[in-house]
Amino acid sequence: MPAAIDFRVVYQDPETRARLGVLETPHGPVRTPAFMPVGTQATVKTMTPEEVRALGAEIILSNTYHLYLRPGAELIRKAGGLHRFMGWDGPILTDSGGYQVFSLAALRKIEEEGVTFRSHIDGAEHFLSPEKATAIQEVLGSDIAMAFDECAPYPCSYEQARSAMERTTRWARRCLEARTRGDQAFFGIIQGSIYRDLREESAKALGVLNFDGYGIGGLSVGEPKDIMYAVLDYTVPLIPAGKPRYLMGVGSPDCLLEGVERGIDLFDCVLPTRIARNGTVFTSRGKLVVRNAEYADDLTPLDPECDCYACRRFTRAYLRHLIKANEILGIRLTTIHNLHFIFKLMKNIREAIRERRFRQYKEEFLQKFSL
Amino acid sequence: MPAAIDFRVVYQDPETRARLGVLETPHGPVRTPAFMPVGTQATVKTMTPEEVRALGAEIILSNTYHLYLRPGAELIRKAGGLHRFMGWDGPILTDSGGYQVFSLAALRKIEEEGVTFRSHIDGAEHFLSPEKATAIQEVLGSDIAMAFDECAPYPCSYEQARSAMERTTRWARRCLEARTRGDQAFFGIIQGSIYRDLREESAKALGVLNFDGYGIGGLSVGEPKDIMYAVLDYTVPLIPAGKPRYLMGVGSPDCLLEGVERGIDLFDCVLPTRIARNGTVFTSRGKLVVRNAEYADDLTPLDPECDCYACRRFTRAYLRHLIKANEILGIRLTTIHNLHFIFKLMKNIREAIRERRFRQYKEEFLQKFSL
Repeated sequence: MPAAIDFRVVYQDPETRARLGVLETPHGPVRTPAFMPVGTQATVKTMTPEEVRALGAEIILSNTYHLYLRPGAELIRKAGGLHRFMGWDGPILTDSGGYQVFSLAALRKIEEEGVTFRSHIDGAEHFLSPEKATAIQEVLGSDIAMAFDECAPYPCSYEQARSAMERTTRWARRCLEARTRGDQAFFGIIQGSIYRDLREESAKALGVLNFDGYGIGGLSVGEPKDIMYAVLDYTVPLIPAGKPRYLMGVGSPDCLLEGVERGIDLFDCVLPTRIARNGTVFTSRGKLVVRNAEYADDLTPLDPECDCYACRRFTRAYLRHLIKANEILGIRLTTIHNLHFIFKLMKNIREAIRERRFRQYKEEFLQKFSL
Repeated sequence: MPAAIDFRVVYQDPETRARLGVLETPHGPVRTPAFMPVGTQATVKTMTPEEVRALGAEIILSNTYHLYLRPGAELIRKAGGLHRFMGWDGPILTDSGGYQVFSLAALRKIEEEGVTFRSHIDGAEHFLSPEKATAIQEVLGSDIAMAFDECAPYPCSYEQARSAMERTTRWARRCLEARTRGDQAFFGIIQGSIYRDLREESAKALGVLNFDGYGIGGLSVGEPKDIMYAVLDYTVPLIPAGKPRYLMGVGSPDCLLEGVERGIDLFDCVLPTRIARNGTVFTSRGKLVVRNAEYADDLTPLDPECDCYACRRFTRAYLRHLIKANEILGIRLTTIHNLHFIFKLMKNIREAIRERRFRQYKEEFLQKFSL
C-alpha cells in the first residue's frame, strides 16, 4: 500500500533529539513538533473549526470510541466522513478506542479476539477488536489511524505489562491486515509500561511491521514525570528516525518541552481545554486559577504577556464573573487562551530549534513557568 | 437635564402604526424597530460582543437585578462601567430589576419604600427601591435606564392591577428625582395589566413626567396573544408620538411583527437564545426542534433559506449530535442561528416599512411561519 502521508525531518538539533519536520497528509501539511487539540465528540470543545485553525492548530485528534458510540460510524459515513461531518478540512488523527475502552468503559472483558464493554453513556454492551477499530477509523476517514492497543495501567507488574505489550503487537498485525484504504496512514503504538526491555521488544516488533509512524502509549497515565522522561530517553531511539513519533496524551507545557527535547514530533492532550473549563489557565508565570476569589476585582488580563483574544479584550475579574455565573463565554475565553498559549509555545519551540537555541529557550521558559 | 438620547421618526407607515426611527445614544445609533438581545449576566449567552454585533445587534439589554447580585455594582464601577466590563461598546439598555424581583426572587416583601427579597443565587436578603435601582443603573452606566416598577402578574384582579400601576407611577417619580447623570436616558414603564382605563391612567401620569421613552410592561406574562395585541392597540396611541416605545419581554417572530404593526420601536426577549439552548430553532417554515430523533441523520441545514454561519457550514444531524452530546458548540450554533433569524426579520421589517409593503411582508412571513 502506498504511504498516505509523507514525513520529512527538515532540521535535527545537534544538541538534543529535538527536530523540525513536515508531515504531509491528504488534508494538508503539519509542521512538527505539533500539538493536536482533542475533538473527542467531533468538536474541539466550545470551538468552531475556524477558531481552532486560527489559534494555530494544523491537525486535530478525534476519538473513535466516542464517535462509535455517538453518533455512530454509519451517520458519519453518510455525511461523507468525519472531516465533512464536523466541518474541519485539515488533517485528523483518530485514536483507536483502545485507551478509552480501558479508561472509560465499564465491565470490560478483554479476550484475544477483542474487548467487550459497556458504554459509559447508556450501559449498552459493545465489542471492539483490531479489525473493528480499523474499519471504524476507515469510515471516519481520518488522515492517520491508530492501531488498537491494550494500554496497561500504572503501576502494573512486569507480567501484566508484558502481556499487554505482546497482545498490542498481535493486535497491531491484525489491524494492518484489516486495512483497505490507501489514503489513510496507520500508526502502531509502542507499549511496555516502564520496563525498558518490554519497550525495546515492542518497538522492535512494531518496527518490523513498518507502520507510517509510531505512538508511544502507556505514558502520562499517573507515573512520575521523571519516569516518563526516562522511558522516552530509551524508547525514542528505537523508532526508525524517518518516522513520526507521537507521545500520546501529553500536553502540559513542561512535558511538551521535555518531549520535544527527547525527539517527539506529535502530542495530544485534553489538559489545556479541560482545565480551561474548570477556570484554570496557563500564563507565562505558571498556572492561574482565575475562578479563585483573589481575582474577583482584578482588572488585569489573564496574562499581561499574552496577545490572545481573551487577554486583549477582557479582565480576570470579568472572566471570573462569567465562570462563577456558569456563563459559557467564560469557558470559551479560557479555552481560547489556553490553546493560544500551547500553540504559541509550539511555535516558539519550532523557532528555537531552527535557530539552534532550543535548550536555552526551554530553560528560560521553565524558569518563569514554575508549575 | 438635557436628553441623553435623541429619537427621530424617519418614516411613518401610512397604513399601520409601524414606523422607522433612529435612536441616537451616547454609544451610537440604533435603527428602529429594533430587537435587543438579552445579556442578563453581562454576556449575551454563549456569544462574544463581536459576534453579537456581527449578527446585527445595535443595542443590547442587561439585567440590573442579576448584576447587582453578581458580580455587584461596585466591581462594575471599578471596571469603568458595564460597557467596559463586558467589552460591548454599543448602546445598552438596563432594566430596573423590578420584573426580576417579582419573577425570580424568593420571599419578597413589597412596601411603599421598596422590595425586600432573597437572592435566587444564595438566599441572602436584599432590598431594592426606586432610588437604589436608579443608583445601580447609574453605576452600570447604561445608555438607557428603566424606572423601577411593580409588575402585576397575569391574571390579576382590577384592584391588584390598579394598586401596582399606581405604585409604579409613584416609584417613577422617585426614580426621576434620584437621577444624577445627564448622559443616561430614562424610560418610564406603563403598567395596568389588561385594563384599558388603568393603561390610560398610567400613560397619562407618566407622560406628564416627560420620560425619554416608554416601556409597556406587564405584557407577555402569560396572557393570550390577542389580549396583548388589544392592549397595544389602545396603549400605544397614549404614548407621545416622538418618544420611543418599548414592548418589554417580547421576541417571538409573530409578536415582533404584530408589535411593529402597532407602533412599537424596541423589543427585548430571552426567547431566541433560550430556546436555542434547548435545541429549538426558528426557520422560515416555523420552529424546528433539532434535538428530536427525526433529525438524527438529516444532512440538510437547519433552514435551507438561511445564510447564517450555522446553516452555511453544518447539518441538522451534526447539530443534533452536538446537542445530544452536551457539546457547547451545538448551542453556540443554534444561538447564532436564532439571533441571525431575528435580526434578519427586523431588517426585513424595516425594509418593508420603507418600501410601503409592511403589511404584505407580514402576511407572507406569517403564512410560511406557522407556529
